[in-house]
Amino acid sequence: MQVKVFQNVLDANDRIAAMNRKRFAEHRLLVLNLIGSPGCGKTTLLEKTLLLLRQRKAARPGVIEGDLETSRDAERIARLGVPAVQINTQGGCHLDAAMIQAVADELPLKEMDVLFIENVGNLVCPADYDLGESRKVVLLSVPEGDDKPSKYPYIFRAAGAAVITKMDLLPHTDFSLEAVRRDMRIANPDLVTFTLSARTGEGLEPWVEWIEKLAAETRIAHRTPNIERPASK
Amino acid sequence: MQVKVFQNVLDANDRIAAMNRKRFAEHRLLVLNLIGSPGCGKTTLLEKTLLLLRQRKAARPGVIEGDLETSRDAERIARLGVPAVQINTQGGCHLDAAMIQAVADELPLKEMDVLFIENVGNLVCPADYDLGESRKVVLLSVPEGDDKPSKYPYIFRAAGAAVITKMDLLPHTDFSLEAVRRDMRIANPDLVTFTLSARTGEGLEPWVEWIEKLAAETRIAHRTPNIERPASK
Repeated sequence: MQVKVFQNVLDANDRIAAMNRKRFAEHRLLVLNLIGSPGCGKTTLLEKTLLLLRQRKAARPGVIEGDLETSRDAERIARLGVPAVQINTQGGCHLDAAMIQAVADELPLKEMDVLFIENVGNLVCPADYDLGESRKVVLLSVPEGDDKPSKYPYIFRAAGAAVITKMDLLPHTDFSLEAVRRDMRIANPDLVTFTLSARTGEGLEPWVEWIEKLAAETRIAHRTPNIERPASK
Repeated sequence: MQVKVFQNVLDANDRIAAMNRKRFAEHRLLVLNLIGSPGCGKTTLLEKTLLLLRQRKAARPGVIEGDLETSRDAERIARLGVPAVQINTQGGCHLDAAMIQAVADELPLKEMDVLFIENVGNLVCPADYDLGESRKVVLLSVPEGDDKPSKYPYIFRAAGAAVITKMDLLPHTDFSLEAVRRDMRIANPDLVTFTLSARTGEGLEPWVEWIEKLAAETRIAHRTPNIERPASK
């Protein structure tokens, strides 16, 4: 009984996610769904990524922030001059496709190339919910420990990319990059991986280049053929 | 509809939690439900706590470990010679009362004074599920950041105690103890708080003393009157 209800909820979510995906394709938008534990550094990585994207001028960003409560994160993003909206789930442990559908039009989608969705801090539940994104990106911070890909394999299986954050704390922990890379490969051999520190800036460039490359591919993939339109009177 | 189903699930959980609570009371057991993000240091704190409890001989522990997959954590505990069982939720984002009911008899409850339940790494969902515990204890690690009590207030409201872990990393972060204490007080003025580093041992004693004191109170509260029993033949 319980399982049946859960499946119905996911079916409904998938239908709305498909609608979101279609809408994002119309705007030729790359959409990245950022997922990770509370405090793994999602917002800080986002801030640094937005600053680099602005400097390099290759992709125009927008942000949807998800949190149980507060609008702190959207305010942090808005301070950078990047369009941002905040979803408060009021206790809900993940974003779902209907929430994204409800707020997407608050953003200037036409003037954007990449939409970042920062999910609720949670390494478990967001793995199950398609929001209509192009890729799920899982973040794992060094202080969380190198055993997480084997203990929380679902999100590593669902993700297209993994970012190991807070690399500046590596010398103060017993985190093994070798172990975490091995376990991520076991969970998902196709995972693209990055190691970086948003604080020091180390490793940010390959990550931002990856986003720009995907955004460019998305623009081409969804390009509508050139059609001669009648000039407006 | 979705909300109604969720309430039914919680009602069912609460009924089983009440049965667990009764069973634990019969054994005069203190039961602590440890909740925190993936990698906040639940298992490491538990290991150090068990070693100290053994040295001080004031309370005999047992452990139920909850993880999506693997039995790594229960193996870490069993290596210390402490009775431990592992629950694998296979993707489930929290433990529930029925899981605890199903495994509790695998532990020597009669020979224990305190049962630690290490929940699935998740700062959100476990807040809603009563397992029949005496207290929920929320862990927050320094690298997660000082904004978590305001962004994840539900678990801080539900908990009886909060432990700030990984204090040895404080110099390498911009974590403000003052800010986190203020926000925890706003969420829950009755929260008992501890700050410690399981790695260095700093701050462990007051935490262990608190457990021993609660365990002693639990033994007295549930003491059955002395009844003359017929000697077995």
